[in-house]
Amino acid sequence: MTIDQARLWNRLEALSEITDPERPWTRRSFTLRFLEGRDWLAAEFRAAGLETAIDAAGNLIGRLPGSDPALKPILIGSHSDTVPSGGRYDGILGVLAGLEVAQSLAESGQRLRHPLEIVDFLAEEPSEFGLSCIGSRGLAGALSEEHLALRRPDGMTLREGIAFVGGRPEELASVARPGGSVAAYVEVHIEQGRVLESEAVPIGIVTDIVGIRRERITVTGRADHAGATPMPLRADALVGASRLIEAAYRRALATARDNQPLVATFGRIEVSPNAANAVPGEAVMILEVRSGDEAAVKAFGEALVRDLRPALEELRLTVTSEPISHVAPTACAQDIRKAIADASASLGLATRDLPSGAGHDGVFVARTGPIGMIFVPCLDGRSHAPEESITPEQAGDGTRVLAQTLRLLDTRLS
Amino acid sequence: MTIDQARLWNRLEALSEITDPERPWTRRSFTLRFLEGRDWLAAEFRAAGLETAIDAAGNLIGRLPGSDPALKPILIGSHSDTVPSGGRYDGILGVLAGLEVAQSLAESGQRLRHPLEIVDFLAEEPSEFGLSCIGSRGLAGALSEEHLALRRPDGMTLREGIAFVGGRPEELASVARPGGSVAAYVEVHIEQGRVLESEAVPIGIVTDIVGIRRERITVTGRADHAGATPMPLRADALVGASRLIEAAYRRALATARDNQPLVATFGRIEVSPNAANAVPGEAVMILEVRSGDEAAVKAFGEALVRDLRPALEELRLTVTSEPISHVAPTACAQDIRKAIADASASLGLATRDLPSGAGHDGVFVARTGPIGMIFVPCLDGRSHAPEESITPEQAGDGTRVLAQTLRLLDTRLS
Repeated sequence: MTIDQARLWNRLEALSEITDPERPWTRRSFTLRFLEGRDWLAAEFRAAGLETAIDAAGNLIGRLPGSDPALKPILIGSHSDTVPSGGRYDGILGVLAGLEVAQSLAESGQRLRHPLEIVDFLAEEPSEFGLSCIGSRGLAGALSEEHLALRRPDGMTLREGIAFVGGRPEELASVARPGGSVAAYVEVHIEQGRVLESEAVPIGIVTDIVGIRRERITVTGRADHAGATPMPLRADALVGASRLIEAAYRRALATARDNQPLVATFGRIEVSPNAANAVPGEAVMILEVRSGDEAAVKAFGEALVRDLRPALEELRLTVTSEPISHVAPTACAQDIRKAIADASASLGLATRDLPSGAGHDGVFVARTGPIGMIFVPCLDGRSHAPEESITPEQAGDGTRVLAQTLRLLDTRLS
Repeated sequence: MTIDQARLWNRLEALSEITDPERPWTRRSFTLRFLEGRDWLAAEFRAAGLETAIDAAGNLIGRLPGSDPALKPILIGSHSDTVPSGGRYDGILGVLAGLEVAQSLAESGQRLRHPLEIVDFLAEEPSEFGLSCIGSRGLAGALSEEHLALRRPDGMTLREGIAFVGGRPEELASVARPGGSVAAYVEVHIEQGRVLESEAVPIGIVTDIVGIRRERITVTGRADHAGATPMPLRADALVGASRLIEAAYRRALATARDNQPLVATFGRIEVSPNAANAVPGEAVMILEVRSGDEAAVKAFGEALVRDLRPALEELRLTVTSEPISHVAPTACAQDIRKAIADASASLGLATRDLPSGAGHDGVFVARTGPIGMIFVPCLDGRSHAPEESITPEQAGDGTRVLAQTLRLLDTRLS
């Protein structure tokens, strides 16, 4: 069984080029562009001989039967949606690596003992619904009624969104997989950081996926005419927001540690009225905190707001914070980490253990069975940006390690 | 001649209620809502006996002939457009006060020596084209080809926008009025500040309109994955923007003086990619500085950027600044100020001299002749906000002073 690196690379190029033309590389979930990518992917799955269908949660799944129907399935995959203007390889590498492994297996005439499922999870990235990992939540039975009632700005509910991509929200309960029902889940992904590249290591073995907490922080002041309101009488919400942004940056910088870093980001801010001649009356921001240290993740936002509140009140501002989401850190399984290490060694590829600072579908799939992740370097660590780039060899290395890991797991898992 | 305060108030209520229903009080220029307001206003002008037409620059003008056709016209008016979610009386008070004065004059059988023009200037507020005082610029021959080529986000040019509201951009040269062609321009407006209310003075006599400078300040860093980019490796444009916002606030607070205050506002900020899980790569802000001290207005932004640049460069950020607009302070004419003072005294209304911190069409009309402004208090100084509020008596006081000022000027001006 040999991976066809050229075929893999051609598919990466073909799928990434299904993008909103004015802002490459964009294929956001719940859009017609996303469905265009999905149609292409489903056709490739079918041409490679996979039994292909969309499950109730909107995941695209291609199946290859195993020789022992009593065994639980092994899942490999990732996601085909992107953030705005970013994600040329983020996600699709894992899906297309899975497809390449399945197709190479089938072409080689070999058959695994375990059933194999290649999964393109729905909406791993935060969509307009404000929720990420929608498909993997669904697979794990973790989509609540509250989630399904979320509305995006144009009024569509997530329930309608799942139906829009071909899912069946009314059958979600039947598709949810119980704990222990999956033999293993392995995902190839770009690192999205600079550790592997800076150390010239081709394969990263993920130890755990950091916990991620998002809070909506709202600073409320008073919208006033910018010309007729003297500085001492203002309650400028953007000035208050600025103090929170600066303080969060300094605080995260001070608490970051080398191997278990904490990062805090105000990535999104909406100011109203947001006019040149109006004193900002309100600033709504999202604070995102990530770390493998769950207690630190939980404490960050609350401490930030508590410490800054007196200074903001002096500016006649109020500040409120409400949690949007909280995902605990997720450990990768020791036996899958061992299989990835052994597979890499057999291929002569150096490895390094490292945590994943990014969240992934594995967080939810871990509720159904053990997970592991294989990282490959990306240029200058760039991701979620148009410049995201990898080489055909890096894609090929990750896919070869995935294939060999799969063979080892197929033998080792009972 | 007696002002009909109830009729004036009913008109203020009727026109303000022509608003985007989901965000009162909004009637932005170059929208169908704005045209709806204009149609209502033109019908009222005509019903009051005014010769009504839209000039080439898109201003709605109602004319009342004078007894001496050799005399230059006296102009009174303001504007009927609003900022988003604000401006219930900002603008329309001056237009409807002008209409009420003209109608009361006509009904009383009196006739002024001077021709009288009631003007609803087009787009006094900053529109989607990023330019304010469009109609008064046109009246003064100050609309350049560059202005007409401005595009709003949907691609429409200002030239097309002026045609959309019924103007004739190809005839702009013929409508421009030369210097000295207007006998006087008097505008009634809400103060948009708290000076008159706090001193319980019903009439403000504007001494000058502050100079206003706007600059686009762009902070550029690097958009990165928020989870996979450790704090020390970031170039977070929003953190840099926060430092500029805080510094501008402190600097303006320190330089503000009682009677000639300087105000500096970052009212508008756009961050990209503006996603919860992306380090902000760029922040584009508008800095607006206002003061009667033109040198201070000019120096503020440049000094701010120069002083902050080293700190931003330490954060791996670049910062650029480009001027968007600069309007010098405008003095109100001494003889018009005197006429307003005499008119108020004859009506038993106390007055106070004060500068206008807000820009007004008078800045451009001053190029065609002497100008004056009559301010009335507004509740808690609120303006450009949904809470903007005045009483029928305050509206009536301003209109009565306008009527009496007009009679004095008609006699005194040669």
